Amino acid sequence: MSGADGSLPGTAVVLRVRYAETDQMGVGYHGAFLPWLEVARTAWLREHALPYRDLEAAGVHLPVVELSCRYRRPVRYDDELRIEAEARPWGRSGIRFRYRVTRPADGTLTATAETRHATIRRDGSVRRLPAAVRHGLGKTGAG
Amino acid sequence: MSGADGSLPGTAVVLRVRYAETDQMGVGYHGAFLPWLEVARTAWLREHALPYRDLEAAGVHLPVVELSCRYRRPVRYDDELRIEAEARPWGRSGIRFRYRVTRPADGTLTATAETRHATIRRDGSVRRLPAAVRHGLGKTGAG
Amino acid sequence: MSGADGSLPGTAVVLRVRYAETDQMGVGYHGAFLPWLEVARTAWLREHALPYRDLEAAGVHLPVVELSCRYRRPVRYDDELRIEAEARPWGRSGIRFRYRVTRPADGTLTATAETRHATIRRDGSVRRLPAAVRHGLGKTGAG
Amino acid sequence: MSGADGSLPGTAVVLRVRYAETDQMGVGYHGAFLPWLEVARTAWLREHALPYRDLEAAGVHLPVVELSCRYRRPVRYDDELRIEAEARPWGRSGIRFRYRVTRPADGTLTATAETRHATIRRDGSVRRLPAAVRHGLGKTGAG
Repeated sequence: MSGADGSLPGTAVVLRVRYAETDQMGVGYHGAFLPWLEVARTAWLREHALPYRDLEAAGVHLPVVELSCRYRRPVRYDDELRIEAEARPWGRSGIRFRYRVTRPADGTLTATAETRHATIRRDGSVRRLPAAVRHGLGKTGAG
Repeated sequence: MSGADGSLPGTAVVLRVRYAETDQMGVGYHGAFLPWLEVARTAWLREHALPYRDLEAAGVHLPVVELSCRYRRPVRYDDELRIEAEARPWGRSGIRFRYRVTRPADGTLTATAETRHATIRRDGSVRRLPAAVRHGLGKTGAG
Repeated sequence: MSGADGSLPGTAVVLRVRYAETDQMGVGYHGAFLPWLEVARTAWLREHALPYRDLEAAGVHLPVVELSCRYRRPVRYDDELRIEAEARPWGRSGIRFRYRVTRPADGTLTATAETRHATIRRDGSVRRLPAAVRHGLGKTGAG
Repeated sequence: MSGADGSLPGTAVVLRVRYAETDQMGVGYHGAFLPWLEVARTAWLREHALPYRDLEAAGVHLPVVELSCRYRRPVRYDDELRIEAEARPWGRSGIRFRYRVTRPADGTLTATAETRHATIRRDGSVRRLPAAVRHGLGKTGAG
């Protein structure tokens, strides 16, 4: 489902690497990528379904249960990064996001990642994905 | 109320600077100190009053409303740091913590800080400090 | 030097509170504000002087040596925040930034802060502010 | 190579979940686990080879190039967690760490993870694992 240039259909956000996110190797700390993925995921939900804050207000939580990330090239302080996210259903009630992190200035693919999310109520019990999210998944041709 | 060596009466914790907490200047990021202060504050409450998790479970929250920090010497990855905290009442229902961050290996004072906390209920309304905390403040001669 | 509405002359950035930046009280963690101030400071330098990455590449570092922050209202996940920063000379070779953090949606002033920065070389020795920064400070009427 | 109880041979550290590491779902943020893995990895290197700060001082860097994590149970603020790490060679010059995160209070396995690291020089070029690390890997029966 990727475009000819490998880009993901879905949502993209652009952000800059903060100084706080660097480490003493002079690059973006590998753990800093997780909040970046989250920013793209939040944008996907806002765009294709509804804001995650509204989901949570309705008692729906999508915690990360599996995470994988492959770091390909280092990123630097103040680099402008583009985070693309696309979503698919995962199992009976979950959702899976895939991500590409690129640096538009030189076209470098810096990381790829995937997160898998359960759909739970505040008390931790499993529930179905809300209709709005299922509808959003359908729209991206991922049904 | 400081000892002859400037140390604070109260509680001390020891921790190491994590790689995640460094920045590209090769030192501990200035924002990393705030969680360290929190670790010492948590230890003070556990030791002199009751665990903060129990306070929160009882509907008492102590959010930071004022913060000041003076950075004196840089700290490095893997440095062992000692964080001392002492507490005093602040106004009618608040609490004030003062901190000293030292590096025991060479005796360097790396930072001093202060945080002031309101005492609120979950809904944000102001309430008195719980008796257990007031009692703990009294024990440190800070009444 | 504030405008009639209290806004600071200088630079403003807009960002959203990340889920990673919340804590279990359901609000933005107080330590999360420091990277936000840094984003505004970075923007000020880029706009009025030169990118901080270029300053560092030229061997000039502006570490935070004093920090104060007053938290006035809680901020929530996904809130859009506006961070304003203005800069002044501080002493013979330092620079001081003041900040206002507001939530444009309801006009709330959520925090005010100040950071003071020494100007040092990579080896830690003190040096003058670079001409480009002094020039930028002059342009804001802060000489 | 696991013990009868599933524990990993190697190194274990114990730490508490910081308030800063929680999120508004009331649990430890999934991204907070990465610094915890790092603490265990740092301890493994100190115990079986040599401190990572010494490795870096000698021009050897072990950046994370692949990461996977499976979150099994939520962790809470102030929970005491035990992070076990073991290491194996990975390919011709890399190293792979596996981790188990447990909560000793109730014996819960909260997460398992793996990181793979390249061995590079400061300039990014690939090099062999230093002899001290290879020796440490051998001692854990992982040769």
